[in-house]
Amino acid sequence: MYCAGDVRVETVPDASMKEPGDALVRVLASCICGSDLWPYASMPPSDDGRRMGHEFLGVIEDTGSGVSDLRRGDVVVAPFLWADNTCDFCTEGLHSSCRHGGGWGSPDVDGGQGEAVRVPQAMGTLVKVPVAEDSALLPSLLTLSDVFCTGHHAAVTAAVNPHTTVTVIGDGAVGLSAVLAAKRLGAERILLMGRHKDRTDLGREFGATDVIAERGDEGVAKVRELTGNDGTHAVLECVGTREAIEMAIGAVRDGGRIGRVGVAQYDEVPLGMDTIMRNITITGGVAPARAYIEQLLPDVLDGTVDPGRVFDRTVTLEAVPDGYRAMADREALKVLIRT
Amino acid sequence: MYCAGDVRVETVPDASMKEPGDALVRVLASCICGSDLWPYASMPPSDDGRRMGHEFLGVIEDTGSGVSDLRRGDVVVAPFLWADNTCDFCTEGLHSSCRHGGGWGSPDVDGGQGEAVRVPQAMGTLVKVPVAEDSALLPSLLTLSDVFCTGHHAAVTAAVNPHTTVTVIGDGAVGLSAVLAAKRLGAERILLMGRHKDRTDLGREFGATDVIAERGDEGVAKVRELTGNDGTHAVLECVGTREAIEMAIGAVRDGGRIGRVGVAQYDEVPLGMDTIMRNITITGGVAPARAYIEQLLPDVLDGTVDPGRVFDRTVTLEAVPDGYRAMADREALKVLIRT
Repeated sequence: MYCAGDVRVETVPDASMKEPGDALVRVLASCICGSDLWPYASMPPSDDGRRMGHEFLGVIEDTGSGVSDLRRGDVVVAPFLWADNTCDFCTEGLHSSCRHGGGWGSPDVDGGQGEAVRVPQAMGTLVKVPVAEDSALLPSLLTLSDVFCTGHHAAVTAAVNPHTTVTVIGDGAVGLSAVLAAKRLGAERILLMGRHKDRTDLGREFGATDVIAERGDEGVAKVRELTGNDGTHAVLECVGTREAIEMAIGAVRDGGRIGRVGVAQYDEVPLGMDTIMRNITITGGVAPARAYIEQLLPDVLDGTVDPGRVFDRTVTLEAVPDGYRAMADREALKVLIRT
Repeated sequence: MYCAGDVRVETVPDASMKEPGDALVRVLASCICGSDLWPYASMPPSDDGRRMGHEFLGVIEDTGSGVSDLRRGDVVVAPFLWADNTCDFCTEGLHSSCRHGGGWGSPDVDGGQGEAVRVPQAMGTLVKVPVAEDSALLPSLLTLSDVFCTGHHAAVTAAVNPHTTVTVIGDGAVGLSAVLAAKRLGAERILLMGRHKDRTDLGREFGATDVIAERGDEGVAKVRELTGNDGTHAVLECVGTREAIEMAIGAVRDGGRIGRVGVAQYDEVPLGMDTIMRNITITGGVAPARAYIEQLLPDVLDGTVDPGRVFDRTVTLEAVPDGYRAMADREALKVLIRT
């Protein structure tokens, strides 16, 4: 990406190993993230451009001398941040704060929207999945890279369980994944706030019991109306705007929890005395996807959940620029890239 | 209180029972709360004044026809909000949001800084304590009304446990109570931020392992210096100013929790993308003291904790105005009122 609206497919130096802990992964599938749309809307011009893509799965082509548990030919999922999986943060399940981790598409680490990627900390980062390169499960497995784990993180941090009523704010791929995650955790009632019928229809299939098209104060009033004026125990904030976090505070029940996973487009949150009187908790954050992949994998493999349904368009690498456009124009919910 | 700085002792109509669920309590001891200092500093003039006091313990003088488990002569502690202890919020431990509860000193409910109080929802509100009217434990038992429970709430919501490092912001009575509560929950390290030596000395006796006199960015830097640049797992925010909540965000470790119990003097909290990347949780709120009294009572009765040490001055009812002045001038940490 060279600037807002300007994504180009270019030939770059081949991905190659640099450290003993590296693996070289040939990408089978990657995708465009809702978070990619923020720079797509606002990135200032850059001479060097920015390597894109942080969600991918692929096949191990080579491993460094320090890698003992991955082999050429293994199909692996990469979480959207690489991590050592051994430091104290990783041990606590907070791989997003790994002491030796980092992100894809940084200067010397390839982006996922490409043919191949050098994976640092490969043993810590990659999770082998027992499927073939042409498995029909690849789309759902790819969601373990980010979007399904992100929805799950919102639900887990907001303490969703079978006794929980839930509001999900946002009908993008993260919001729908959050619905699916909340349903998987047993939530008794899931109110989905969104106004795109094709998306909220999928949300209903994922487990939403109610759909609220209203926004802002009207949306909050609707949540209150549906919950005896109480609000819901959990609110999963999957948008990231100031309006969305304000809606979350309005929709949450006293003593409730807001799990926020939207990329914050705000700097301040209205958390004054009212929220203290109500004992509102704000939690969540960038998902430690690596912590959840093995946990969610069995349900993906046996078809209990099918999070890959968020992909409603597939493009080749050459068509990635049009994929960005389609997502930005809301023609597509989430775009899968087949390499 | 008639306006900022103007507290008067006046003869009011005798407290009397109105509802079958009421009890009439003769006050043995009450106290002045740090939160009383906010109106003492800023309350606009009022013709009718405001009845003060929300922390008290006393002796049952009479009970309504609907009260079956309290008897004349029982010594009881009143939490700083009255509650039915049976609604769904109370059952969940959130008595501060009780569906039939309320506060002391509202138009038809007496304040605690007086001779006697009508207690609504007496069976839900009052907790009998097995001591005599002249027990030396009264000061510590009185802290169960608010201040020790409030410190405990900060620690509980911030998930303090034996594996937790803790920063406590504020060396007022709530802050020191939070230190004691964190110590009681087993915190391995407790950094107390405060600059009044007599108070931080008591904080050390309560369990603080380090005292940080610096404030703002310097204070945060000190916490970081003492924790290998990580910050602490939990931060207990016991002040309520914007500076304090900013310090809390700066001092908390990635993935950590801020339990805030200060009376918020701010409307907005800086919770932008940085705090999302770090997975910071903001929790806490007004303490459901009623939920904690029975839990903390045994340790008070057997002397395991002595939270009453926060009282460093005792006044009679007539001297309450001077008690406010002394606390506002920081001559006194917390003032006990003997009726």
